[in-house]
Amino acid sequence: MRPTLDFLLHDWLGVASLTERARFADHSPETFASVLDTCERIAREKFAPYNRLSDTEEPHFDGDRVHLPECTHAALAAYVESGMLAAAQDYENGGMQLPCVIEMAANSFFSMASVAMGGYAMLTNGNANLLMAHGSAAQKEVFAKNEFAGRWFGTMCLSEPQAGSSLSDVATRAVPDGPDSESDPLGPRFRLKGNKMWISGGEHEITENIVHLVLAKIPGPDGKTVPGVKGISLFIVPKKLVDTEGRLTGERNDVALAGLNHKLGYRGTTNTLLNFGEGRFPVRAEQGGGLDGKGAGAIGYLVGEPGRGLAYMFHMMNEARIGVGLGATMLGYAGYQASLEYARQRPQGRPMGPGGKDASQPQVPIIQHADVKRMLLAQKAYCEGALALELYCARLVDEQATGDGAQAADAGLLLEVLTPIAKSWPSEWCLEANSLAIQVHGGYGYTRDFPVEQYWRDNRLNMIHEGAHGIQGLDLLGRKVVMEGGQGLALLASKVHATIERARRVPALAEPASALAQALARIGQATQAAWATGDPQDALANATPYLQAFGHTVLAWVWLDVALRAQQRLDEGGDAAFLQGKLAAARYFFRYELPRIGAWLGVVESRDPTCRDMQDDWF
Amino acid sequence: MRPTLDFLLHDWLGVASLTERARFADHSPETFASVLDTCERIAREKFAPYNRLSDTEEPHFDGDRVHLPECTHAALAAYVESGMLAAAQDYENGGMQLPCVIEMAANSFFSMASVAMGGYAMLTNGNANLLMAHGSAAQKEVFAKNEFAGRWFGTMCLSEPQAGSSLSDVATRAVPDGPDSESDPLGPRFRLKGNKMWISGGEHEITENIVHLVLAKIPGPDGKTVPGVKGISLFIVPKKLVDTEGRLTGERNDVALAGLNHKLGYRGTTNTLLNFGEGRFPVRAEQGGGLDGKGAGAIGYLVGEPGRGLAYMFHMMNEARIGVGLGATMLGYAGYQASLEYARQRPQGRPMGPGGKDASQPQVPIIQHADVKRMLLAQKAYCEGALALELYCARLVDEQATGDGAQAADAGLLLEVLTPIAKSWPSEWCLEANSLAIQVHGGYGYTRDFPVEQYWRDNRLNMIHEGAHGIQGLDLLGRKVVMEGGQGLALLASKVHATIERARRVPALAEPASALAQALARIGQATQAAWATGDPQDALANATPYLQAFGHTVLAWVWLDVALRAQQRLDEGGDAAFLQGKLAAARYFFRYELPRIGAWLGVVESRDPTCRDMQDDWF
Repeated sequence: MRPTLDFLLHDWLGVASLTERARFADHSPETFASVLDTCERIAREKFAPYNRLSDTEEPHFDGDRVHLPECTHAALAAYVESGMLAAAQDYENGGMQLPCVIEMAANSFFSMASVAMGGYAMLTNGNANLLMAHGSAAQKEVFAKNEFAGRWFGTMCLSEPQAGSSLSDVATRAVPDGPDSESDPLGPRFRLKGNKMWISGGEHEITENIVHLVLAKIPGPDGKTVPGVKGISLFIVPKKLVDTEGRLTGERNDVALAGLNHKLGYRGTTNTLLNFGEGRFPVRAEQGGGLDGKGAGAIGYLVGEPGRGLAYMFHMMNEARIGVGLGATMLGYAGYQASLEYARQRPQGRPMGPGGKDASQPQVPIIQHADVKRMLLAQKAYCEGALALELYCARLVDEQATGDGAQAADAGLLLEVLTPIAKSWPSEWCLEANSLAIQVHGGYGYTRDFPVEQYWRDNRLNMIHEGAHGIQGLDLLGRKVVMEGGQGLALLASKVHATIERARRVPALAEPASALAQALARIGQATQAAWATGDPQDALANATPYLQAFGHTVLAWVWLDVALRAQQRLDEGGDAAFLQGKLAAARYFFRYELPRIGAWLGVVESRDPTCRDMQDDWF
Repeated sequence: MRPTLDFLLHDWLGVASLTERARFADHSPETFASVLDTCERIAREKFAPYNRLSDTEEPHFDGDRVHLPECTHAALAAYVESGMLAAAQDYENGGMQLPCVIEMAANSFFSMASVAMGGYAMLTNGNANLLMAHGSAAQKEVFAKNEFAGRWFGTMCLSEPQAGSSLSDVATRAVPDGPDSESDPLGPRFRLKGNKMWISGGEHEITENIVHLVLAKIPGPDGKTVPGVKGISLFIVPKKLVDTEGRLTGERNDVALAGLNHKLGYRGTTNTLLNFGEGRFPVRAEQGGGLDGKGAGAIGYLVGEPGRGLAYMFHMMNEARIGVGLGATMLGYAGYQASLEYARQRPQGRPMGPGGKDASQPQVPIIQHADVKRMLLAQKAYCEGALALELYCARLVDEQATGDGAQAADAGLLLEVLTPIAKSWPSEWCLEANSLAIQVHGGYGYTRDFPVEQYWRDNRLNMIHEGAHGIQGLDLLGRKVVMEGGQGLALLASKVHATIERARRVPALAEPASALAQALARIGQATQAAWATGDPQDALANATPYLQAFGHTVLAWVWLDVALRAQQRLDEGGDAAFLQGKLAAARYFFRYELPRIGAWLGVVESRDPTCRDMQDDWF
């Protein structure tokens, strides 16, 4: 994986040029390499060997405490020690001022080695980043910095049992916590009551405290909350209360673990149902405080302004969505590597000659069979392509943060359009890669003696959390491609066209360039056709097939752009086998994958009503 | 599921007409219904409630015995009690002379309720059927009849650790067992030595004995075996030796469990590595018998002629392949039903109106969302379509057995062509259905509190066992469509054309009829193009995409034929909601699924060499 990562970072994305910017001036290709080396080593030594254990020794709750295997504590201690939690932060906040693209490349090793153990760090980083963007000075100092330092880990608490994807139905309530609530140095203080479901990392004892970021609604004077997402505010709810110096006060907040969810995979990350404010841990009851005068109610500190909670949370969600995409990608990659190794050493069968097979010859490694090569090449095309896309998105984050005005704005806009793809595409296709990795192994792949079945189970979550597939489709076709008069889509199209124009001048790439031009034109037509009646019900009835077609087209673009660079390096005398591999994967993608868009776009273009018109009693 | 099953059996396949044949003369629609009622009830009472338990209480081996949960014993006792093991057998053999299509319909309830617990019965039935076709009178009487009676269960032992799909590399050896070996009343007696891998039901204590059917090679006078499949013979190797009256002699045969495979799913069926003849259980050592003079060597009885073992085994394999297809189908169906029920009761979100969503309205059941309907309709189209195909194949088995000469021969030929599809298509698409069932459930689907994640895990095996996907593709494109000068393909095409012609006369079905005609023509062209150079390496490089396209075309045919019947019943005033559902599923299949074949056939037609030409060191 490392040679591909280096090729994408240096040859394709040209990350060295980032060191010309003031923020990254202390860095060099050497410092980047050193970060990657360190992370690769920690992932190899502390994460990968225990990935199976983190699955078989599932977290369990004894009614009082949650138990995790020792390996999880040790792995995360090593991660914290590396300083990676604050990798992209300012020096003054204890960070390394690394570009986001390098941070992501470094984190890819952990996702590949053990996506579930790595989950805690991803959430903590996203949580603290949100506070750096929207929290008060005290909130940054007390909460974010202690998260970056790894003293405390963080969560995001959005979903509720009665409202998964439908955030407008959040029913958790927050009321001011007594007369001095406005003047708390940690932010306006509230008491929260409600249940939060699917909270990853919601309980553990890896760190001394857990910083929950919680969506809740503040009732008006009539006791009613505002329907819809506009009424949602964001609160910091620490598991244990702290003072302005970040010291634990010794008070347990009223946040109780109702239970652990027992999952199909991703078991190393605890997944919880949390009860906020039900009085299980009364807190500050002395002066008749709390919702019941006896200390019930989880104490939380408002972040930013009331009613803007979902907008702030999307800061974290967008990062988390790219993080999910990276996790899905690296699970796919792990399976690809495992099945490649297996295919190289497993002898079985013989090549088909013109006269059939010669059974008197010895068996050959299965990598010599065309269908096994197909399954490996598909995995390579899915996973390396997805990795390229995720790194490209991270590079856009850097551009948004450190580019000049117009470039930064463009990067932001492009990121908006690409985020649903960065999240959904690897979730679907790197899961398919994991299935192919099982298939390459035959019966062995179906046993728990080989790692690939776990990758497949772990990866199935990624189409669900941080916005299910259907939600991503609605976001893309319902919002992203039409926002600002379609400027985001137009900008993406201009980037794709630039790649096509360059590829047209390279004979070996003229054919895929032409195929991509056709695909892009068809995406444009399908977008128009979907919205031709102006009725969202017509347009969005086939939002998921649209998402799939859009994703395959974006990946074809990424592969063509990567192939351009590979061809150039090949012409310059670069590593022939390595570069031919990139060109073959691109060829595979254009010949076997891109043509799939026809079937998906057909129903979008015709606004096919088959699904929308289906009646409940016809099933 | 039952209304669909009844519709397919009676309205679509017209099974009542089978009762006009002598073999089924005692039967009537009422006796068929009674069998289905009984099986539905046993499956509901004895299988379904314990399916999760059969997964969580995985079989374990204490070094001496294999332990299974009590529910597995009870479920199979009820199955045996029902007489279903011999359902299709002659009255004189204790059977019910049921048509195969009714037997399969009845078994579908068990596959749906617990595919893993039902696995033992399917294997036993296939094993005994093989002996009825190829065994001696004594072998039928002693082994087959005791299997039909459920006293003993059976296995099929093909694979070996060093040779999974490559049966020509079978290394298990069989040598005559002493001077009187030819005159054993149970058949020529041999001593076997070798290891067999992936043997389902290879060890358990559900029944007092286990009848293994084992592929092995008989060495020539030079001690060498014939390379390739021609040297393979078939042996009956009972776990415990028996006499000609079917009584246990008290002798343990030299068959030892080396270990259980711990699988991703399908855990209720033990999966074993068996050591034959390694001397762990010396047997009949008295007169210096056995391979080492001390009783080593598993005693086995030759079935039929030496060297014909694989041909005999294919009798069982073809049945088993359709059985795997049915199992995959019913797992898909189980997930479809579970997710349909969930979607009907789970409130979340609101319909999108022209002005967006109105958050002040109550949430609606998710079945009202277009994308959820899409996921349910896809499952319906996959699973009901696959069920129709499996029943159609079973109907062909009946035709082959009881039709007149030409019809019987046609049925046999058609069955040859359809078997790879009947096995592979549900394995791929009903697995996809299970993934969609998880998706409909959202996070809940990913937990072990709901059944769908288990269905998905169980179903993943079906693309691997009884001939992996790649093997089915080679069988179809390399053998089945070219055999007898392409007669099988031509026969299938004539059946498809007959449906198209009928559909063309029904206005509502003219569009899909035309689409199917185009698809069929393209399959024909692609078959020719694949073989245009006559080189199997060219033709078979894309055998799997060919299999996928062929499968989707066959299913489109099945759906058009089913839709014809549904439209007819609708015109006659049949149950409108039920029949509209069939028409909607057919419409979904033609609009969303059939267009996929373009991408698959593109690479077949161009004999795309991308995969074949891929080099090991390019990965």
